[in-house]
Amino acid sequence: MQHTAQQYHHLRSANSNELRQAVRTARYQSHTAGLAPGCLQANIIILPESEALDFMRFCQRNPKPCPLVGVSETGNPVMHTLGEDIDIRTDVPAYNVYRHGNLSESLTDIEALWQPDHVAFALGCSFTFEDALTRAGISVWHIENNKTVPMYRSNILTCAAGAFGGEMVVTLRAIDKHRVDEAIAISRQFPLAHGGPVHLGDPDAIGLHDLSKPEWGDAPPALADKVPVFWACGVTPQHALMRAKLPLSISHKPGHMLVTDIDDQAEVPVYQRN
Amino acid sequence: MQHTAQQYHHLRSANSNELRQAVRTARYQSHTAGLAPGCLQANIIILPESEALDFMRFCQRNPKPCPLVGVSETGNPVMHTLGEDIDIRTDVPAYNVYRHGNLSESLTDIEALWQPDHVAFALGCSFTFEDALTRAGISVWHIENNKTVPMYRSNILTCAAGAFGGEMVVTLRAIDKHRVDEAIAISRQFPLAHGGPVHLGDPDAIGLHDLSKPEWGDAPPALADKVPVFWACGVTPQHALMRAKLPLSISHKPGHMLVTDIDDQAEVPVYQRN
Repeated sequence: MQHTAQQYHHLRSANSNELRQAVRTARYQSHTAGLAPGCLQANIIILPESEALDFMRFCQRNPKPCPLVGVSETGNPVMHTLGEDIDIRTDVPAYNVYRHGNLSESLTDIEALWQPDHVAFALGCSFTFEDALTRAGISVWHIENNKTVPMYRSNILTCAAGAFGGEMVVTLRAIDKHRVDEAIAISRQFPLAHGGPVHLGDPDAIGLHDLSKPEWGDAPPALADKVPVFWACGVTPQHALMRAKLPLSISHKPGHMLVTDIDDQAEVPVYQRN
Repeated sequence: MQHTAQQYHHLRSANSNELRQAVRTARYQSHTAGLAPGCLQANIIILPESEALDFMRFCQRNPKPCPLVGVSETGNPVMHTLGEDIDIRTDVPAYNVYRHGNLSESLTDIEALWQPDHVAFALGCSFTFEDALTRAGISVWHIENNKTVPMYRSNILTCAAGAFGGEMVVTLRAIDKHRVDEAIAISRQFPLAHGGPVHLGDPDAIGLHDLSKPEWGDAPPALADKVPVFWACGVTPQHALMRAKLPLSISHKPGHMLVTDIDDQAEVPVYQRN
């Protein structure tokens, strides 16, 4: 059964901790867009320690698709640097489980799968800079129409590390011509949320020949006189994870993010107890 | 024998690759301030793979003192993400070797010490934002007077990971009152070069009771009507390394940095072959 934030009006005003409690106790298991405004939300990747160093190298070399905001201790599911009492086995609304590179199941908790050698990684997401674009009055189609951002597998190659590599997944936001420079400048201020765009203009130049057919998310309307602007996407590490064909790895389910206690404007993503 | 850039006038105009060749062939083994302008310079830490994951966690949790700009493959001394043909065993002008937490020797190459399980880490340094301050016409005492920036061990604690932790080392730059906001804004634009300051004003608040006695670098003049502004310092990871008391670890010798081929304005510190 899928609950949406619309059905749970009281969660619209929940803070990050209350929201995670609702997730942990299975009262909320849906997408997190717009929830706990002002709090950093994160993509999650979980894999064995034997792959963790290469995965961190992959993130370091590809900070736009993979802006690392938190790393657990090995085998400890409590992500203490991201907030108060965050248990990564239960506090994400939904998870995808990959076995040998294939999506095998989606779950709402992973207590049965967590291993003593698991390491959890949290990566920043685009909600942060989208909020900033919205505050600046820059129109973004998928937000205004309550759709999911269109995502495409580009031909831009990531910088590989160990088993991790492959093409960069990008998101499209069509921006009014006269606001493009401003959109770039705003997003560059958020290196922990994908930073500045990776490409502007001609989609063919990055291997995208039909914008009406995104690989994930909703099909966008025609560009009209807007400029197509492409940002690195947090689905890139999931794509890299599948290519790596590990026996077992876990991610959040797209859109179903970990909501942290970190201020989404923070320069340093480390939770300070009051 | 110590050679200085003043004795090697031709190196003042050398590009990063030429400079590294001079270092590798022992024609230059001194500090790198002001050399290969426009190229990112980096602090270096080398330790065994068994400690590498915790050290990367330490960097992720303390991005101001430890802005990670490159990580080698295990056992491979060629840091391909930072430039053309960079061999970390020979291309740094001078190294400090630590044994069980104590500085045991300084060397000009470490070919004899490099191990098959070694991982090399490059961390951004303050030269990048200092250049930007200088370009903006903000006066910085140690640059104008060809001194070394004063460094202090503050009482600000880093966020620990495994064996790595301890106090943050900070640098002092006394800034004209009316330019402080600008200096903050400029440095925040360089998250790979320590980002914005960690403290402004009262030195006692971060445990510094006598600014005339820095732990490293040169003693600064009295503040007069300038504001003391403190930034996180790249000596912090060396301090953490010494506290960790590993049997063997290696760093660059302070001021003797790796000069990379990365543009020091780059958003992503990954070298793209032309």
